[in-house]
Amino acid sequence: MNKLAFLGPIGSYTNEAAINYNKNLELINCNSIPQVIEKVRTGLADEGILPIENSIEGPVTSTIDLLIQEPKLKIKTETVIAIKHCLLIKEPTELENIQYVYSHPQALSQCRNFLSSNLPKAKLIASLSTSNAVEEMKKSKVTSAAIANHKCASIYNVQIIATKISDNENNYTRFIVLSNIDNKQTGKDKTSICFDFPHDSPGILYMVLEKFAKRHINLTKIESRPSKTNLGNYIFLIDLEGHKDDEIINECFNEIKPLISMFKIFGSYPIFNMSNISKN
Amino acid sequence: MNKLAFLGPIGSYTNEAAINYNKNLELINCNSIPQVIEKVRTGLADEGILPIENSIEGPVTSTIDLLIQEPKLKIKTETVIAIKHCLLIKEPTELENIQYVYSHPQALSQCRNFLSSNLPKAKLIASLSTSNAVEEMKKSKVTSAAIANHKCASIYNVQIIATKISDNENNYTRFIVLSNIDNKQTGKDKTSICFDFPHDSPGILYMVLEKFAKRHINLTKIESRPSKTNLGNYIFLIDLEGHKDDEIINECFNEIKPLISMFKIFGSYPIFNMSNISKN
Repeated sequence: MNKLAFLGPIGSYTNEAAINYNKNLELINCNSIPQVIEKVRTGLADEGILPIENSIEGPVTSTIDLLIQEPKLKIKTETVIAIKHCLLIKEPTELENIQYVYSHPQALSQCRNFLSSNLPKAKLIASLSTSNAVEEMKKSKVTSAAIANHKCASIYNVQIIATKISDNENNYTRFIVLSNIDNKQTGKDKTSICFDFPHDSPGILYMVLEKFAKRHINLTKIESRPSKTNLGNYIFLIDLEGHKDDEIINECFNEIKPLISMFKIFGSYPIFNMSNISKN
Repeated sequence: MNKLAFLGPIGSYTNEAAINYNKNLELINCNSIPQVIEKVRTGLADEGILPIENSIEGPVTSTIDLLIQEPKLKIKTETVIAIKHCLLIKEPTELENIQYVYSHPQALSQCRNFLSSNLPKAKLIASLSTSNAVEEMKKSKVTSAAIANHKCASIYNVQIIATKISDNENNYTRFIVLSNIDNKQTGKDKTSICFDFPHDSPGILYMVLEKFAKRHINLTKIESRPSKTNLGNYIFLIDLEGHKDDEIINECFNEIKPLISMFKIFGSYPIFNMSNISKN
């Protein structure tokens, strides 16, 4: 049975995405993003799954920064799940009795309106993950709740007191699956790349984008990450429609290479069909 | 005395930036980013200071998302401080005795190498801010440390056991000061704008960038934020050199307006001189 390393702990949204992606893989629980990458790189796992982008929060910067440094692994595919935060409790109580709410700071901020309308007096407490939040809630000596995945209810043997508590219903996370294997063309692919510039000059990004525009290559994402050397130096990340082995894409890459310094292809992989999102 | 609202609590990096920015203002401690904006909007403060970008982590997305929605306030100026994380303790001990390390998840991740080399067995515990981390460390019943600002040592009456513990020395945060007033031209200004597109079509961002490039207007930052409606819809944010009242900039804005739907100028303000960074 092939092995899939995922960013844990059990009950995390990445765990949910891993199960949705492929039920026939043995799951390996990892406690950090670098550990997921390490498992695949060393062959202890065949594939690794990591969150890369949330529709509300934006990019998962720690995944992107590791991808930029990664010399070997390729994106094999992408998958998307709907993020449906629930409020979990140990034993039956009314919402107004809840004194502490545990969760990851991002989940707390995504449920800000729900919390201020329904639990205005509750103290918000940060946890390192939504699953950790459930564990901490269980240990708490005062009446507490945790914001997490609905699957955590059965995993941690706790109860759901409220569902769909995100302020914004359009809450989706996109995940990438990394492996050692390069994908062949399927006809409906996207390619993720990154690059930076040898020096900062007016219009240099425009000159790169021109190479895509004149070939009508659609860019589905463009974002920048700090290069970590100086404030104001950026690495650009682009997702584009097409496969790196398509003649038109290959020709375009050859034309941009003289303009840029670092250039990296994270992989070409089939575009996820949003109608396949799990309705759970 | 004019009033400056800042993102607290006391001892936060924004508190440090507020003091560096202008010592002659009365500081108003706010417990959230929306509260800082509210104080200025309602006139309870004349100005508000918020973090907007870190050289390692990238954009402070909650500040950017509120700026996109903000109908009235303008960026008055920007300021930058060096982020120098310290390890703080209650009473003298050896590093190897420390069992828990409290901090904001971002500070914990910025000191990952220091922690794994010097405190490999310590448990990392998330806090909502670096100042909260110091308070939680003080209450802890086991030997603990917190990662925070060096100023927290005197504010919370604790000791510094290690300084400069960030893995990357190029750790800077840029802050913006918001007010109700529009700035006049100084000759060394930058302008921050955002916009989105009515529909997704190949090359549309390129067409906008062309208007800047052909005028040799230097873009110092370009980034995208999710529009929060659908995964893959973005709002673009650009910082450019020049003032919105400069003829060339004004002409350029008029040319891009027909291509975009939403368009917003966050403000024109003097460019921060990096040689003015506090050497503390």
